[in-house]
Amino acid sequence: ADVAAGKAKAATCSGCHGSNGIGIMDTYPNLAGQKAAYIAKQLKAFKSGQRADPIMGSMAKPLSDADIANIAAYYASLK
Amino acid sequence: ADVAAGKAKAATCSGCHGSNGIGIMDTYPNLAGQKAAYIAKQLKAFKSGQRADPIMGSMAKPLSDADIANIAAYYASLK
Repeated sequence: ADVAAGKAKAATCSGCHGSNGIGIMDTYPNLAGQKAAYIAKQLKAFKSGQRADPIMGSMAKPLSDADIANIAAYYASLK
Repeated sequence: ADVAAGKAKAATCSGCHGSNGIGIMDTYPNLAGQKAAYIAKQLKAFKSGQRADPIMGSMAKPLSDADIANIAAYYASLK
């Protein structure tokens, strides 16, 4: 996975999950240091609708598998 | 919320999420330092079935609202 590409793609995510991976509201999870495989699994579940969330569903829909792997690697790399 | 009660109740959770809140496998999320409101929201979603997961569904089902608040506060308190 490409952390730099993930960081670029995660610009949209940072609106809620923070520029440092710390959620800006109490119901927005921290992603910094989270396990990449877990993040990727959840993004795929949001994309498919298996995990239902109006915001994350529309965020995840346009992501390719490579985007997902890169974004997950980027957040996992943050401390 | 009662962090000590949450810690006691979280003994079961630690089988997968670690005794320090760090998931023992790549697909088990870290919970240490996660936002309490987010953890509580997810536990309620697992309990109701709104968020579907075979393991977490059965784990969350017996939890009271107080248990959920205490467990969420406990994991949020970990670093």
